Amino acid sequence: MRILLTGGGGFLGARLARELLQAGQLDGRPLTELAIADLAPPPADIAADPRVKAYTGPLLSQTALFASGFDGVFHLASAVSGECELDFELGLRSNLDSTRALLEGLRHAGNVPRLVFASSVAVFGPDVGNPLPDLVTDTTLPSPQTSYGTHKLMCEYLIADYTRKGYIDGRSARLMTVSVRPGKPNGAASSFFSGIIREPLAGVETTCPVDPNVTHPVSSPAHTVKGLITVYQASREALGGRLALNLPGLNVSVGDMLNALEAVAGVKVRARVRFERDERIASIVANWSRGSTADRAKALGLLPETSFRAIIEQYIADCRSRPGYPADALRGLD
Amino acid sequence: MRILLTGGGGFLGARLARELLQAGQLDGRPLTELAIADLAPPPADIAADPRVKAYTGPLLSQTALFASGFDGVFHLASAVSGECELDFELGLRSNLDSTRALLEGLRHAGNVPRLVFASSVAVFGPDVGNPLPDLVTDTTLPSPQTSYGTHKLMCEYLIADYTRKGYIDGRSARLMTVSVRPGKPNGAASSFFSGIIREPLAGVETTCPVDPNVTHPVSSPAHTVKGLITVYQASREALGGRLALNLPGLNVSVGDMLNALEAVAGVKVRARVRFERDERIASIVANWSRGSTADRAKALGLLPETSFRAIIEQYIADCRSRPGYPADALRGLD
Repeated sequence: MRILLTGGGGFLGARLARELLQAGQLDGRPLTELAIADLAPPPADIAADPRVKAYTGPLLSQTALFASGFDGVFHLASAVSGECELDFELGLRSNLDSTRALLEGLRHAGNVPRLVFASSVAVFGPDVGNPLPDLVTDTTLPSPQTSYGTHKLMCEYLIADYTRKGYIDGRSARLMTVSVRPGKPNGAASSFFSGIIREPLAGVETTCPVDPNVTHPVSSPAHTVKGLITVYQASREALGGRLALNLPGLNVSVGDMLNALEAVAGVKVRARVRFERDERIASIVANWSRGSTADRAKALGLLPETSFRAIIEQYIADCRSRPGYPADALRGLD
Repeated sequence: MRILLTGGGGFLGARLARELLQAGQLDGRPLTELAIADLAPPPADIAADPRVKAYTGPLLSQTALFASGFDGVFHLASAVSGECELDFELGLRSNLDSTRALLEGLRHAGNVPRLVFASSVAVFGPDVGNPLPDLVTDTTLPSPQTSYGTHKLMCEYLIADYTRKGYIDGRSARLMTVSVRPGKPNGAASSFFSGIIREPLAGVETTCPVDPNVTHPVSSPAHTVKGLITVYQASREALGGRLALNLPGLNVSVGDMLNALEAVAGVKVRARVRFERDERIASIVANWSRGSTADRAKALGLLPETSFRAIIEQYIADCRSRPGYPADALRGLD
């Protein structure tokens, strides 16, 4: 089968690509082609696989590709929230127009391809008269507080309508904040949810911009990728409706994340994190979900991870064995 | 002040235009220009007003107009639900692309114009795991079952984001089904909500395609226009949030609509309505809201109408005095 992966040049997309290539099949059918469309080229180990075809450039220039009859699509490509807040038109183009171009291509192909759309917990936010509940559920009324969340939500509904019309078999899965991401801080307001673990493990001093009692739903890279594949493979009946579903998140406080870091790596590593409140970031995070539930994902067999300690241990194991993790990622461990 | 009205060639838009022109002011400021953009030209009595400028043609061709610095906008232009179901691309173009072109023009104008968007009760619908409640509220999770409702909902969220960014002062008001509309049946599945009153009053035999116990929120043309103007004039604080609000609807059953018709016009008039179930229409209507509440509109002083009898009496009075009502509209009255 031919699979299209948008955003395969990014960290999560590359991890999904490696998972699919290694499995060699999806939904019981052999993977013969993995087309990767992204602004950035895929990492070398992925590009070297003979099943991979890389299409590097703006998605909006790939309309012919989209209509070429893929069996399935993972649509992860996106400008991130910080970029969209700085450049309103970039957000509309990258997150709304590109998705529309993709959907139109798939519709014109005529073979009703399956599509998994990576939506986000960022669709949720507080509004007057519609406060955020302690836990956002599959049926919490979204009220995005960023252009990024707005466009993700608009695409969720558009995908539901293309599905209703029988043009695609679309599913939207809301990703929780991915932690621990490897590499550099990326300037997103959520960057610290990885940074407060990643930097001290690399021996780098860092700051936490919010109070230790701030809680948030997080998910490891591996668990997030597993969620996307599970949602792809679910039957239409098992999905339980066309509306987007939450992927599972571990609801954890910043303080407990650091306690887990200390338990895994010791007090010296934890001491590299200093609390230094950043009002700009703290005020953004105050509008974010404090936790989530994921009942529909649970019905597909997807449960949240059970401890942040296990997430850190997995990160350390990934640093030692996986492509995409810098060589000096664990320099801070004794 | 300069006001733009899209959809001013339609029945509701024309009624709003006449109301604005007659008042001569909006929000306490004198109306100096009313630009009307629509596929169809405005009725002659409106076009004759020296304050009116008509821009007839597709909204997508009016980008320069949109950026010309209007103080306020009523955005009513829309392809209706039946059209969008028949022609998917028409719906995307007329209801999504046109709204985006309008919003971009208003953003580029740079004067933060106020905008009222006519959304619809059609954003609501049932999904697996998200059944329709007996009454849809301001905070019911939408799940549109038509492309029309999907595009309206997407525009609601886009308008909220343009407002959050400070580009416009946008408000989305969900119209309930307007009854009694004058003129011909329009092929929409909701057409009978007007037809079962309008046709017998005109002396025309008609059928009701659903059971008498079907209930639905309806609003008269006058009340709907009043709702749009009230939402325009509300302060940002009084609106209570950026999410769309329901306009008030009278929750009434088809049977009670006909009882009211009999009370106003007699048993002979009512007898011109025959129940003849149409499975196609009945199955569409089964996915519609059975009633609504409108708490945020209530806080603006907007209450639902209190009897369908009063709505019929208003229709009869309108037929006798208002432009846009056919001369033979009451031929069925003794």
